Amino acid sequence: MSSLQFKGRDIVSIEDFSREEIDYILKSSQAMEQFAAKGSDMLKGKILVNLFFEPSTRTRLSFEAAMLKLGGSTIGFAEAEIASVRKGENLADTIRTVENYADIIALRHPLEGAAKLAAEFSKVPVLNAGSGAEEHPTQAFMDLYTLQKEKGKIDGLKIALVGDLRYGRTVHSLAYALSLYNIELYLISPETLRMRHEVIRAIKNKISIIEDTNLENIIPQIDVLYVTRIQKERFPDLAEYAKVKGAYRIDLKTLQKAKKDMIILHPLPRIDEIAAEVDSTPQARYFQQVWNGIVVRMALLALVLGAVK
Amino acid sequence: MSSLQFKGRDIVSIEDFSREEIDYILKSSQAMEQFAAKGSDMLKGKILVNLFFEPSTRTRLSFEAAMLKLGGSTIGFAEAEIASVRKGENLADTIRTVENYADIIALRHPLEGAAKLAAEFSKVPVLNAGSGAEEHPTQAFMDLYTLQKEKGKIDGLKIALVGDLRYGRTVHSLAYALSLYNIELYLISPETLRMRHEVIRAIKNKISIIEDTNLENIIPQIDVLYVTRIQKERFPDLAEYAKVKGAYRIDLKTLQKAKKDMIILHPLPRIDEIAAEVDSTPQARYFQQVWNGIVVRMALLALVLGAVK
Amino acid sequence: MSSLQFKGRDIVSIEDFSREEIDYILKSSQAMEQFAAKGSDMLKGKILVNLFFEPSTRTRLSFEAAMLKLGGSTIGFAEAEIASVRKGENLADTIRTVENYADIIALRHPLEGAAKLAAEFSKVPVLNAGSGAEEHPTQAFMDLYTLQKEKGKIDGLKIALVGDLRYGRTVHSLAYALSLYNIELYLISPETLRMRHEVIRAIKNKISIIEDTNLENIIPQIDVLYVTRIQKERFPDLAEYAKVKGAYRIDLKTLQKAKKDMIILHPLPRIDEIAAEVDSTPQARYFQQVWNGIVVRMALLALVLGAVK
Repeated sequence: MSSLQFKGRDIVSIEDFSREEIDYILKSSQAMEQFAAKGSDMLKGKILVNLFFEPSTRTRLSFEAAMLKLGGSTIGFAEAEIASVRKGENLADTIRTVENYADIIALRHPLEGAAKLAAEFSKVPVLNAGSGAEEHPTQAFMDLYTLQKEKGKIDGLKIALVGDLRYGRTVHSLAYALSLYNIELYLISPETLRMRHEVIRAIKNKISIIEDTNLENIIPQIDVLYVTRIQKERFPDLAEYAKVKGAYRIDLKTLQKAKKDMIILHPLPRIDEIAAEVDSTPQARYFQQVWNGIVVRMALLALVLGAVK
Repeated sequence: MSSLQFKGRDIVSIEDFSREEIDYILKSSQAMEQFAAKGSDMLKGKILVNLFFEPSTRTRLSFEAAMLKLGGSTIGFAEAEIASVRKGENLADTIRTVENYADIIALRHPLEGAAKLAAEFSKVPVLNAGSGAEEHPTQAFMDLYTLQKEKGKIDGLKIALVGDLRYGRTVHSLAYALSLYNIELYLISPETLRMRHEVIRAIKNKISIIEDTNLENIIPQIDVLYVTRIQKERFPDLAEYAKVKGAYRIDLKTLQKAKKDMIILHPLPRIDEIAAEVDSTPQARYFQQVWNGIVVRMALLALVLGAVK
Repeated sequence: MSSLQFKGRDIVSIEDFSREEIDYILKSSQAMEQFAAKGSDMLKGKILVNLFFEPSTRTRLSFEAAMLKLGGSTIGFAEAEIASVRKGENLADTIRTVENYADIIALRHPLEGAAKLAAEFSKVPVLNAGSGAEEHPTQAFMDLYTLQKEKGKIDGLKIALVGDLRYGRTVHSLAYALSLYNIELYLISPETLRMRHEVIRAIKNKISIIEDTNLENIIPQIDVLYVTRIQKERFPDLAEYAKVKGAYRIDLKTLQKAKKDMIILHPLPRIDEIAAEVDSTPQARYFQQVWNGIVVRMALLALVLGAVK
């Protein structure tokens, strides 16, 4: 593994990483568990600047907690309506300003390509904390790490992505990442919210893909149920929305047909696509996933800043 | 005192505490004065997450300063319009997410019962930083500590709560707490803003209560004047408001009839219910109270996180 | 230099400082470069409270980075719409509250005189981070330090301030400061945006001043080009605005006539008054200036808090 290089690297897209690199990041994440629990001074004196041009409390707090647990500190902003943006400054200028304050930058931006642009201009590493509708690489690392931690391995799993596979930011990054493993991928969604063609095209020669609109049929065979929100706004017809919503809702009845050791993940926030009664079942792992997000981001921060090899 | 248990405990309501426990917290607060002045590493590596669903700069900064002075760090948000809330997430889910980032949570929420609900779902201790119109327990601890520090004792004092006793968040918590001491309580307010029945009912058998609409009459005999804001919005009739406002305003003339060692407290912010000319009198203690708020919150953080016993 | 006293001092206006004091601050800034790069524990346990009543991400993050690099911590707010202000509290009360949380306060406020008022009420030192349209002293220190660092000296330089000299907050503080040095000052602006009379009056007996509307003519002789934004809102007539804007825009063609070692500064954010093609020229120093801002603020924090002499 001596050929792996993380120091100084940007984390823009999950597609920039080989399986070997991803496995190494998952291994480093595991090593971070102890520091997540008891703290560390590994990044003492280092500053993470959070540039959140759209609000995402969950992701922002996760990056901040990760940095603090490594002994570093964080500054930044968490709203679109910040001063310099209002004054019309472009992103490249913002980056060339902010890099002076930062040892590392985490960027959340509504436009696709924003993280890539930022990485090109920045002297310090840029971590993509979600840009546009497509990429959210740290979420994908967190999902993979959860699979590895909960199931002991990723290879061999039958994994269903359920819900809105068209607009969901996280499922695209995750599908790309899963295509590097030897898994069976079930894509379960309403017709109008099927996984985008370009994602299918990029991964279909690598893994076995089963697309279906019916969740009930496939439930008995799968190991991992990755549920996403279906947003009302996507449906011109509210009756159609109501029908679809009901068909993909997970409740105790859904679980009766599932394997005992199936696990349920969700990128959160959850609205009602998973019934509250499921929360206390052993299958529910969506809140534990949040902890894994901190651990993975600690690993990425430490690797990119050269604090671990 | 070996029976007192604070580690891991939630601070939801002042009514959950016995007099013995409150006295212990006040004693711990006193011991914190030195660390408030020169800092400490007592909570190094610990993270306080501030969830402020309604803005309260004063209380938020007080919690943050308390945590920093103990060597810990803080993250969080300070506005209602946060991302996950906008997406419709419920409070229980927010808590089960955020507890992963936190060693302890401070919650401010517009709804009554929010802190209690949060405490039920959270694995880490929850500190109520104000919920709904009723409870604000850390403010009550801070008021009690100020009495103890300024007057040397609480028992035996004649204490007047003045102004809006109906809607004011702080006076309810304070009245409950004072009922554990051997004091005389004067409740001075306009008819329409009298102390709520349920509060009176809960405390009237424990302490002597004098209700009155007239401030002038009782001024000469009291030791502590606890002044609160009277908000214009409470009055349908503006002429009525103007009259009431004038009758409860504290100025130098008011003080002429007061004891020399009477002290004036106010939960702040103060608008014009205390004239600026009073600020430089020895009776004015409302700005010193702010310091005491830090000290008390340091004690609560340290006790609940098990850093002191 | 034993007569210089910085500990406990407010930084309200650049006009409060003698040349000897400014030179000392610049020297202290240079000594901070090493701590800006590798961190320090000089202000461990100290708390900076940022009170930003108007948003200014750039300045706020610069103060925060400066404090963190010295081992201190920061709390505060960054919006006008804060709770206590909405409740009608006046600035003096806010200061007398916040000083309890703070070892030092940085204040940004839309009203002129706000920093001065805050300094009068505060027990802890107040740093003016921009108040009203006139004073922004830490920006002026940062500009002076950039001149010193980039050109090796300030005396003897021919310096042109270009653009909006009437409403620009930074050029007034800078002009006052430059009048303490032996320089030639070129004030290049449209007629309607000329430098204010009171500034001219205060400095005209100390240094040589050349006012002109034409940038092209003076370009060949100057050493430093300090460019500012011209805001559309200042012009009732948009055609007039378009003409003016074009006349003061800096591009590669402008630079052809300039000295090879001329440097270009800009307080940022830059909109289009400097063409992007200029960014990669050796003359462009506006993004490096941001770093200098951190260094200067570190020096001011350390001096005022008595951590260096």
